Amino acid sequence: MSKTPFLTKEKALEIIKKYPTPFHIYDEKGIRENAERLLKAFSWNKGFKEFFAVKATPNPFLINILRDYGCGCDCSSMTELMLSNAIGVTGEDIMFSSNDTPPEEFRYCSDLGGIINLDDITHIEAVEKACGGLPKKMSCRYNPGGVFQISNSIMDNPGDAKYGMTTEQIFKAFEIMKSKGVEEFGIHSFLCSNTVTNDYYPILAKVLFELAAELKNKVGVNITFINLSGGVGIPYMPDQQPNDIMKIGEGVRKVYEEVLVPAGMGDVAIYTEMGRFMMGPYGALVTTAINEKHTHKEYIGVDACAANLMRPAIYGAYHHITVLGKENEFCGCTYDVTGSLCENCDKFAVDRKLPKIETGDILYIHDTGAHGHSMGYNYNGKLRSAELLLRTDGSVELIRRAETPKDYFATFDCFDFYNKLINKE
Amino acid sequence: MSKTPFLTKEKALEIIKKYPTPFHIYDEKGIRENAERLLKAFSWNKGFKEFFAVKATPNPFLINILRDYGCGCDCSSMTELMLSNAIGVTGEDIMFSSNDTPPEEFRYCSDLGGIINLDDITHIEAVEKACGGLPKKMSCRYNPGGVFQISNSIMDNPGDAKYGMTTEQIFKAFEIMKSKGVEEFGIHSFLCSNTVTNDYYPILAKVLFELAAELKNKVGVNITFINLSGGVGIPYMPDQQPNDIMKIGEGVRKVYEEVLVPAGMGDVAIYTEMGRFMMGPYGALVTTAINEKHTHKEYIGVDACAANLMRPAIYGAYHHITVLGKENEFCGCTYDVTGSLCENCDKFAVDRKLPKIETGDILYIHDTGAHGHSMGYNYNGKLRSAELLLRTDGSVELIRRAETPKDYFATFDCFDFYNKLINKE
Repeated sequence: MSKTPFLTKEKALEIIKKYPTPFHIYDEKGIRENAERLLKAFSWNKGFKEFFAVKATPNPFLINILRDYGCGCDCSSMTELMLSNAIGVTGEDIMFSSNDTPPEEFRYCSDLGGIINLDDITHIEAVEKACGGLPKKMSCRYNPGGVFQISNSIMDNPGDAKYGMTTEQIFKAFEIMKSKGVEEFGIHSFLCSNTVTNDYYPILAKVLFELAAELKNKVGVNITFINLSGGVGIPYMPDQQPNDIMKIGEGVRKVYEEVLVPAGMGDVAIYTEMGRFMMGPYGALVTTAINEKHTHKEYIGVDACAANLMRPAIYGAYHHITVLGKENEFCGCTYDVTGSLCENCDKFAVDRKLPKIETGDILYIHDTGAHGHSMGYNYNGKLRSAELLLRTDGSVELIRRAETPKDYFATFDCFDFYNKLINKE
Repeated sequence: MSKTPFLTKEKALEIIKKYPTPFHIYDEKGIRENAERLLKAFSWNKGFKEFFAVKATPNPFLINILRDYGCGCDCSSMTELMLSNAIGVTGEDIMFSSNDTPPEEFRYCSDLGGIINLDDITHIEAVEKACGGLPKKMSCRYNPGGVFQISNSIMDNPGDAKYGMTTEQIFKAFEIMKSKGVEEFGIHSFLCSNTVTNDYYPILAKVLFELAAELKNKVGVNITFINLSGGVGIPYMPDQQPNDIMKIGEGVRKVYEEVLVPAGMGDVAIYTEMGRFMMGPYGALVTTAINEKHTHKEYIGVDACAANLMRPAIYGAYHHITVLGKENEFCGCTYDVTGSLCENCDKFAVDRKLPKIETGDILYIHDTGAHGHSMGYNYNGKLRSAELLLRTDGSVELIRRAETPKDYFATFDCFDFYNKLINKE
């Protein structure tokens, strides 16, 4: 199998004339087609709603595309709430799934009418205090503990995760919240990150649906939604079989019919909070080869660095690379593809088989649409790049400008030397 | 052994009245005493100079303290050069040790009169092109390849590092540079990061001094400085024996007498480029406990997160924690100390033995003076904190303001929705 860029070299060259590399670019067509597939996969569920995980790609232009498919925003910080509000995503289009939350964030979410997804039982009191009472509709985050296993290769340790309430606590929390006037309840859980399997959501759904039925029976609460959260991943490696969202939707439907419908809960809405699945494959980091170096290994230096995409440097994460215009050339060279950060881990690829690269070649780094730009830092004084959007009609729009030294030095703006800082002599 | 904060609870409470947590705070007294020790350790070398690794803590107030001890700036990016220039660090007080360098950075460094430390042999031509010729004084970065071993527990793999020239290349480079009119030469090498041993610099010095003598003999170049770069570390763990800079200086002196003096090179200046050693122990992240959570483990949530200090989240790095006012209490509780980032790795400590912590307690996270604030990001829309300086007279000065949402949203300032973004309704 292979990975196909959504840009040709010709198109990239045209874009670079106006917007110099490095930049992240997103593919509207891909985002839309994927969102449509998701809606279709869950069309059997009347109340289905995806709350896009804003942290993955906090860009209003991209979120606005998803809004055409009824998506809301999954927020977990003050600025994410502010961003949602600024583009008109308010009320029950906001799911506030935060943890270790300060009171002012509960208050602001409540002011916006967002749904608060409580991470901890002590937060019942915290919300009451911050908001002067509990909202009528609320959610609790569940953590069953132990080890969660899907297959030999896919597992995670919810028992080590800081998130959510234990089984005992969620029963207790629902009781308390009911007694304090909450009328509509939701359940949320996140057990496994970036799964590439069609089984994760159905297995998780079974856990949550059975819990929901029990909570309904024992506590007598009105559960109106179940939030499967994120965790549905994407294939970063070219030989990975991608998730089939139709099969995933069908798998969840089967469990829904088996567990919820017989429990008289056939009107429960399914929510999701995906980031990576919604945006990951539809973004790319485009960068130019500016140096080649032959020492103890062969190096290609590019004009992007870990400030633009941190996952390879920090997690050793694989991101596929295509040399534009050389898609069909033999990958006969072995390179480390490096950024200019003064950190040896600043490598986009290590011992990667690629076609022979010349200075000036344009490298397309795949799957940077989620947790790419948003995870960028300014280490070594590096500046974060612009974001562009490739529209369905082939036009290209700037959707976030690149940082300048002025941005980098902004938190010195209260000092004398600031003017000297930003005026390079 | 134990680690002693440079703040008492009383002092912290006084500071917090004016500057709310979280913040990084630096200890002027500690910085000065350490810088003095360094100068003393290398006082045998007439030309000794430390170039502070700006990337560790790019704050003008801190760099200005070091300038009292003759320190220059080790820069490796455009903004680091700009920062140095803005505070008057120019000319040969700048060492530009970059890699994968774009031409405009060579040009700017040359305009400032900084010393260019070439990472690659191809950069001779790049500098010529960018600057219209080679400066009279230049340096080359050396990478011997292979494995560099100090002891069973301390080793690194220069052969896998992107930096520097091979032995063959550095000979060739010096020849070319000499033929093109360079008159004064330096050698630089970085082989091992954060070493806690008194042997690293002496062992490295031996390698570089022997190389220098050979380069002098065979190429006939005038080597005026040898740059031992960084790599001298600090003890993050309380049971680690810290480096003794006096012993390190003495170790380098011995090799200098053995190798350089007999080679007729007794006037070569020793340079260093330390960041962590100069600043690491003299900074702390001060944060307040805002949540406690009892689920499958015991959690203390604080108001700082990985946006303020990334090393524990990303590298699993140990940072010692003192609960201020409870310095002498029994560490009878086992906590995960967590930040609010929507990432399970956002933990400042895992299974850490600490005294019983109450909400409102102030936690002092040690050794954040280098690669702390500077490595911060805005993931999850989190804002980077302020930096404060505890002056020798006990007064406290703001030396960088905290980020606001306006900073976070700055790269949207060219769009309609920007005003809505920054004006929270």
